[in-house]
Amino acid sequence: MTNPTAAMLVIGDEILSGRTRDSNMYYLAGELTRIGITLREVRVVADVHNDIVVAARALAGGHDHVFTSGGIGPTHDDITADAVAEAMGAAIGPRADAMALLQAHYDRAGLPFNEARQRMARIPDGATLIDNPVSTAPGFTIANVHVMAGVPNIFQAMVASVLPKLTGGPPLLSQSLRVNRGEGEIAGDFGSLAAEYPDLSMGSYPFMLNGAHGTNLVVRGTDPGRVDQAMMRLTRLFAQPSE
Amino acid sequence: MTNPTAAMLVIGDEILSGRTRDSNMYYLAGELTRIGITLREVRVVADVHNDIVVAARALAGGHDHVFTSGGIGPTHDDITADAVAEAMGAAIGPRADAMALLQAHYDRAGLPFNEARQRMARIPDGATLIDNPVSTAPGFTIANVHVMAGVPNIFQAMVASVLPKLTGGPPLLSQSLRVNRGEGEIAGDFGSLAAEYPDLSMGSYPFMLNGAHGTNLVVRGTDPGRVDQAMMRLTRLFAQPSE
Repeated sequence: MTNPTAAMLVIGDEILSGRTRDSNMYYLAGELTRIGITLREVRVVADVHNDIVVAARALAGGHDHVFTSGGIGPTHDDITADAVAEAMGAAIGPRADAMALLQAHYDRAGLPFNEARQRMARIPDGATLIDNPVSTAPGFTIANVHVMAGVPNIFQAMVASVLPKLTGGPPLLSQSLRVNRGEGEIAGDFGSLAAEYPDLSMGSYPFMLNGAHGTNLVVRGTDPGRVDQAMMRLTRLFAQPSE
Repeated sequence: MTNPTAAMLVIGDEILSGRTRDSNMYYLAGELTRIGITLREVRVVADVHNDIVVAARALAGGHDHVFTSGGIGPTHDDITADAVAEAMGAAIGPRADAMALLQAHYDRAGLPFNEARQRMARIPDGATLIDNPVSTAPGFTIANVHVMAGVPNIFQAMVASVLPKLTGGPPLLSQSLRVNRGEGEIAGDFGSLAAEYPDLSMGSYPFMLNGAHGTNLVVRGTDPGRVDQAMMRLTRLFAQPSE
């Protein structure tokens, strides 16, 4: 069985200008791995309508799920909902249930439900709302595209309400072995072992510690028996003799 | 004058699986902003030959510069050089100057210059080498694509040797105003001001502090006079009266 695939689309000038360090990609990657959905691609684009449309369309056509982050607030630079609607060929307008949610929220807070705030009720036709327990303004799912906020705690809350509804494959397991040798020293044997396990993904990640080269060898796969077996082989190949 | 544009291509299963939090994107974004090159798009793809080829080709065709990160080490999962060569229609093989650099490095270290290490001398025809002062194995530039290591300190050293050779536009300046009001409250006036300054990019980034809503308003542009003028207008609109 092949695991479903996903892509992520991060929307935001603040990431591309280096003002903000993205954390949503790292968070989503970990969550998807846990439930057995393979994140195959991430794109980060600017707050430019056409860039969002082109990327959303390409990713929605190429993956089982697309998750977007950013650009669904009340200000003029929040253009994600309209762009995703266009990408999916849907009309968009203020929706009664989203309006009601927001109206009640601002009434409770004693704040005016003004024109800017009403923009957050613009939802593409045919979408379902994604609950926002932090600040009410909903995300939405249209076909296979899940549109979520960029503020990390809201993004995470939305991910938590979307993921339980999706069917993943067996979770991707990962084990690693840390060896005190450089990559170039273990590459030959490691590559041969990897070739024997085409169903697993094996990667090597070099590091330096106190001036000495070391490498983390990582084995990933969905079959626990195979991952264990490969790790045993790896350990036999590279474990340091105790002194 | 329009600033040159750039894209970044991050290669690595370890990012997409959530094992590693990328830091190279954040670093490069800041450096490019400083020298007046506009980062317009980032893609993260897996260690899959065809995925790298497709992304490299698309980005090289759409931007003045492409910067890649990851996949140029000695192990079997390091496939970036071959994939970029294919994307750019170039042949690839071991190159004499890269071989000599690496041979001398391993001779000094008293380590064998084995087959795995020799893989790091595979350079596409017509490329120029990018200096690696940390661990010798070079990156390379082919046409408008700069291929660099994924290990953050090596990536940063390579960026430092590539960027001074590129011609940027005027640096992108950024100023921000922090206001103790939610986005929905300032969105109307902020949007009207942004419409008066189409040459500037204005963004708003909400935050919560001690249960109260606040917003950082950011003005970005290359003309210092215009940025200052817009900031003065913003301050007049939203500055809090002192109490």
